[in-house]
Amino acid sequence: MISVVIIGGGNVATHLFKALVKADNIVVKQWYNRHLKSIDIYKNLVETTDNLLALKEADVFIIAVSDDAIKELAEKLPFENKLVVHTSGAVSLYDIDKKHHRGVFYPLQTFTKDAELDFSNVPICIEAINKSDFKTLQQLANAIGSHSYKVNNDQRNALHLAAIFVNNFTNQLYRIAHEITESHGAEFDTLKPLILETANKVQTLSPYLAQTGPAKRNDKKTIKKHLKKLENQHHKEIYELLTTSIQRTHGRKKL
Amino acid sequence: MISVVIIGGGNVATHLFKALVKADNIVVKQWYNRHLKSIDIYKNLVETTDNLLALKEADVFIIAVSDDAIKELAEKLPFENKLVVHTSGAVSLYDIDKKHHRGVFYPLQTFTKDAELDFSNVPICIEAINKSDFKTLQQLANAIGSHSYKVNNDQRNALHLAAIFVNNFTNQLYRIAHEITESHGAEFDTLKPLILETANKVQTLSPYLAQTGPAKRNDKKTIKKHLKKLENQHHKEIYELLTTSIQRTHGRKKL
Repeated sequence: MISVVIIGGGNVATHLFKALVKADNIVVKQWYNRHLKSIDIYKNLVETTDNLLALKEADVFIIAVSDDAIKELAEKLPFENKLVVHTSGAVSLYDIDKKHHRGVFYPLQTFTKDAELDFSNVPICIEAINKSDFKTLQQLANAIGSHSYKVNNDQRNALHLAAIFVNNFTNQLYRIAHEITESHGAEFDTLKPLILETANKVQTLSPYLAQTGPAKRNDKKTIKKHLKKLENQHHKEIYELLTTSIQRTHGRKKL
Repeated sequence: MISVVIIGGGNVATHLFKALVKADNIVVKQWYNRHLKSIDIYKNLVETTDNLLALKEADVFIIAVSDDAIKELAEKLPFENKLVVHTSGAVSLYDIDKKHHRGVFYPLQTFTKDAELDFSNVPICIEAINKSDFKTLQQLANAIGSHSYKVNNDQRNALHLAAIFVNNFTNQLYRIAHEITESHGAEFDTLKPLILETANKVQTLSPYLAQTGPAKRNDKKTIKKHLKKLENQHHKEIYELLTTSIQRTHGRKKL
């Protein structure tokens, strides 16, 4: 049995709470948040508190708060020699006060507040200084059905950065596609199966092998046509830069 | 019963053949390709030919060849007043010789040669000049399980262009993420659930509402950290341009 205290009331904290409270061999002992109100609806499932000094002993303390608040919160925890982890992709493990056993439990996924989350689709990147702490965190990941990955600080930061490309930037490309279709009275919905299939394809094929299209083929006629059709100067710049990027990857000349 | 002749031997032609040959109320009368060899393995399922003059009569002739070859092929067809369609996202319907009934049957999806394709995930964009031709093409799409969309030339070109953003450019962002993870000894595999979820999210939420991350939050500290971590100048440029793009969309100032 692993006992857990959750610290924080945002998306990650809430999803972790919901998964941990259901998990076998895990007990969520307490849930702390600065504002009780946002976690109040769970008070029948767990003891809630807004008082750090009232925190109970537990095997693992999970600090799931914004990056800037991690350090200060870890310092304020009223005990020592316990396993304290944060859930950030960007913050160093050493931001956690050294009076604790320090670790990272970083779920690499995009979290939406209301949607129920299936943690079997959430890889957890784990860092810890000693083996037994690492093992505890691995058990925690297993208990909620997550696949876990052992990472170091540099690898985790690289994953966090790469996640910006495959999540935020990709989503912005969807947005631009939305703008393009709308401005010509076409339906963005028509693109949804292609969006899914593009993501599906790289589950088994490398992005290198999955690439197709005019940039890879160096089909200058189509590229020229597209640039002409793009009315928005900003969309044009993105088209040009990503076309060049594809051509670099696939050994074609620059535009 | 709709009779069809397929013209071309590439990915789109092959996937369409496989779907049409299985479909109810459709008969594939003949399959033409310049080189018999590439469609030879299907000769027990359909009559194959490499001779345009030997083409048989049918209700619909589907020209699924490269954009540059469509016009010439349509001219060479040894008959008139038949429904002749191409499958391109970029070529005008008017590139088909006016002696025919002209139409477009554009499957908006990414095609991989070997993988079996489920046409229920392939929207078909349809253009035709008269109503009965449109209806025939709609029946053809229905028969293979596809959802069909009525489009005009401008809408189809816009969809084709938008498809470059959600497919080729998105795939290139996956590739860059692959380069970033590899160069830090992290596993690209860790990102695969996030890639899928990002695509899943916009199936029900607009890309505008789905956006998260440091660019949208205008989290300058994280953006600066990321730019510092990116060793590749080209990746940096893409990071900056897409960050600016997100900030324009969400009303933040430029970098």
